[in-house]
Amino acid sequence: MKRVGVGIVGYGTVGRGAAEALAASLPAIRARNGIDLQVAAVCRRSPIPQADVPRQARVFTDWRHAVADNAVDIIVESIGGTGVAREVVQSALTCGKPVVTANKNLLAEFGDELFALAREKGVPIGIEAAVGGAVPVVRAITESMSGDRLLSVRGILNGTANYILTQMETVGLSFEQALQAAQQAGYAEADPTRDVDGVDARDKLAILTRLAFGGSIAPGQISTRGIRQIAGVDFKYAERLGSTIRLIASAARNGTGFEVGVAPCLVGRHSPLAAVEGANNAVVVRGERAGTHTLYGPGAGGAATGTAVAGDVIEIARHLAEGTLRHKPNTGFPANGELKLSSHPQPVSWYLRLTVKDRPGIVASVAQAIARHGINIDSVLQEPGMDKERLSFVITLEPVSEPVVEDAVREIDEMEFMLAPVVMLRMQL
Amino acid sequence: MKRVGVGIVGYGTVGRGAAEALAASLPAIRARNGIDLQVAAVCRRSPIPQADVPRQARVFTDWRHAVADNAVDIIVESIGGTGVAREVVQSALTCGKPVVTANKNLLAEFGDELFALAREKGVPIGIEAAVGGAVPVVRAITESMSGDRLLSVRGILNGTANYILTQMETVGLSFEQALQAAQQAGYAEADPTRDVDGVDARDKLAILTRLAFGGSIAPGQISTRGIRQIAGVDFKYAERLGSTIRLIASAARNGTGFEVGVAPCLVGRHSPLAAVEGANNAVVVRGERAGTHTLYGPGAGGAATGTAVAGDVIEIARHLAEGTLRHKPNTGFPANGELKLSSHPQPVSWYLRLTVKDRPGIVASVAQAIARHGINIDSVLQEPGMDKERLSFVITLEPVSEPVVEDAVREIDEMEFMLAPVVMLRMQL
Repeated sequence: MKRVGVGIVGYGTVGRGAAEALAASLPAIRARNGIDLQVAAVCRRSPIPQADVPRQARVFTDWRHAVADNAVDIIVESIGGTGVAREVVQSALTCGKPVVTANKNLLAEFGDELFALAREKGVPIGIEAAVGGAVPVVRAITESMSGDRLLSVRGILNGTANYILTQMETVGLSFEQALQAAQQAGYAEADPTRDVDGVDARDKLAILTRLAFGGSIAPGQISTRGIRQIAGVDFKYAERLGSTIRLIASAARNGTGFEVGVAPCLVGRHSPLAAVEGANNAVVVRGERAGTHTLYGPGAGGAATGTAVAGDVIEIARHLAEGTLRHKPNTGFPANGELKLSSHPQPVSWYLRLTVKDRPGIVASVAQAIARHGINIDSVLQEPGMDKERLSFVITLEPVSEPVVEDAVREIDEMEFMLAPVVMLRMQL
Repeated sequence: MKRVGVGIVGYGTVGRGAAEALAASLPAIRARNGIDLQVAAVCRRSPIPQADVPRQARVFTDWRHAVADNAVDIIVESIGGTGVAREVVQSALTCGKPVVTANKNLLAEFGDELFALAREKGVPIGIEAAVGGAVPVVRAITESMSGDRLLSVRGILNGTANYILTQMETVGLSFEQALQAAQQAGYAEADPTRDVDGVDARDKLAILTRLAFGGSIAPGQISTRGIRQIAGVDFKYAERLGSTIRLIASAARNGTGFEVGVAPCLVGRHSPLAAVEGANNAVVVRGERAGTHTLYGPGAGGAATGTAVAGDVIEIARHLAEGTLRHKPNTGFPANGELKLSSHPQPVSWYLRLTVKDRPGIVASVAQAIARHGINIDSVLQEPGMDKERLSFVITLEPVSEPVVEDAVREIDEMEFMLAPVVMLRMQL
């Protein structure tokens, strides 16, 4: 029986989740694949309680020793961030050791560099866990749909933001209350910036875009809006419009290139994305020939992410045991130039929520401003019984491209009755 | 640039779909993978119009010549059925040529034998297209979730039956009308038996069960009920019970083994399976650690199935070009004995629809029969305004195992006021 040793560098939620998933599947792997797969080393700067250390694993505090350990054939990088994690991956690849990582931040920033090194060294990097936790979206795009020309990849990629939005929707919490609930439930960090400002979703979208469409894209090139400005009343208006609100990450081909962005959107009630509740993730992939495919499941958490890491580790271990390792790097980021971003964004419908001190003539002023930009108004909605001193109402617009709406919104934001900036949401109905 | 030739044997909807998908992706494969992938041969007993023949492909009428052709490295079997198709696959594997097939019928009946031959010859069989068309369920189970212990695989695996059910549900058609509509729309064959009697779903379930749980299972061992007895009124009752009706294929682990079956079920309105409309397919995979994952998309049609075939062809072509072909057979059916079927099916809730000539005392007689089998009634429902001469009403039962309900139903079916056998549906709410 061939022996394959795994070294887990970074031993927090994801690292422990991976160790537990591997421990649970070892007997099956032994029986099915004839491989004696073991966690040979774990590494963390701070001490690890003995009860958490897998049997037969050595414990290191310096990652260099874990990577160099002769018993370690595959490195799981589960430190997070782009500092030490990058060094760990570079160092493992340089030693010819395959890497498995769930680190979307690292892959979005330095994926091109790391995959170039992986290609040079002829060893794979497993990244299924980096997007959508255990949702098998990476394989779906790179393998199952590789026979198709993909048109768009859209999805809910951040479980925390989705948890907050569905709490606001179903329990009627405010954004602040829902954020607190997410923190108490363990979904949100003390600093929730990466989740609620769309940064985490943006990094995952950069990875999916890279895999689906080939060209490279820096996360900074992706237009990103978060969910802090969404209020409870937006869900009421959304409901009247047959919709709900979700933070949507989207990369789509149009006539002039690709539109790539993260933003809260109105999503039609019958869309599969409207049905995504709590901390789940979903990805909708549209192929020219394969049609529209939805993948939906737990997108985060140690158990789900750990299982996805373990799935990659097992696949690589099989390659190692069978001497066919050279195969895998192809599924990573290819080296073929930059993605062409679209110069002409597609027109879409828009939802504008205005917060004003009420007086006669407001709708007229706003409507005139909108008309001056050549935009047609579709509807004007107002919830009954609102406080005149701080009233919010909604204007929906017929399809028009984002820069045009932004110009109109800038003009409206200047008006003296406006108490807060316009909340501007894309409508995907 | 390495040249890889594909031979397509059987040139109907799936074969042509595969040829078209491959033609569409050739430039990308050349650029990305450095492989000159070509359809080198197509084969059909009847003549193929020249316009349908891929450029540079030779045309054969005898499959033996296509398999033996020196320019053919990979065989796509798209004949269907278990006769010639089986010979084609055996012959290709025996020559050491990898096979890609969408033939669920063949795999369900002879998959064990064919995968044993594939292992012996060290060549892979690609089967992603055999279940769920382009829905990437095979890879999700065999690769992405290979790090987990799976608990259940459940889904809507037959697009035709689902099209019929959703037409009955949304347009209010009868079963016969909906079947005709499906035939007119090109979803159902002239002989719809395999679709409406659950046979096609059963074959696909046999394959998924084999992949998810390892043990072998003959399609004949799978309890299979079709949808012929479903009437429009069942959707009305289902709606009152917060549900709809879907043909569900399900394989689930319980304490004593596996329960595997295909049957129309009441499905709660909020279940992802209730949202599956028209000819789509969906699969819900539950893992001990990965949680519950749903995959949803077009399950049939030449374009979707052809794309899935092309995805497998491309993956195998990459292995061929890189000399790593030995790797893939592991993802097929393992050789590890028979699946242990459960001796004690789990209790579930049941929906019984009775069609009777109305007179006082009917509910009392039926209730007594049910009580004699130790079963508790949950509710009795009757739509208003029904014809007394042929009235249908519904009884729902508290959880009880299938053999116990079947005994009670047999007794009710004997009663003199019964005009038709009881329609018995499992409730998955």
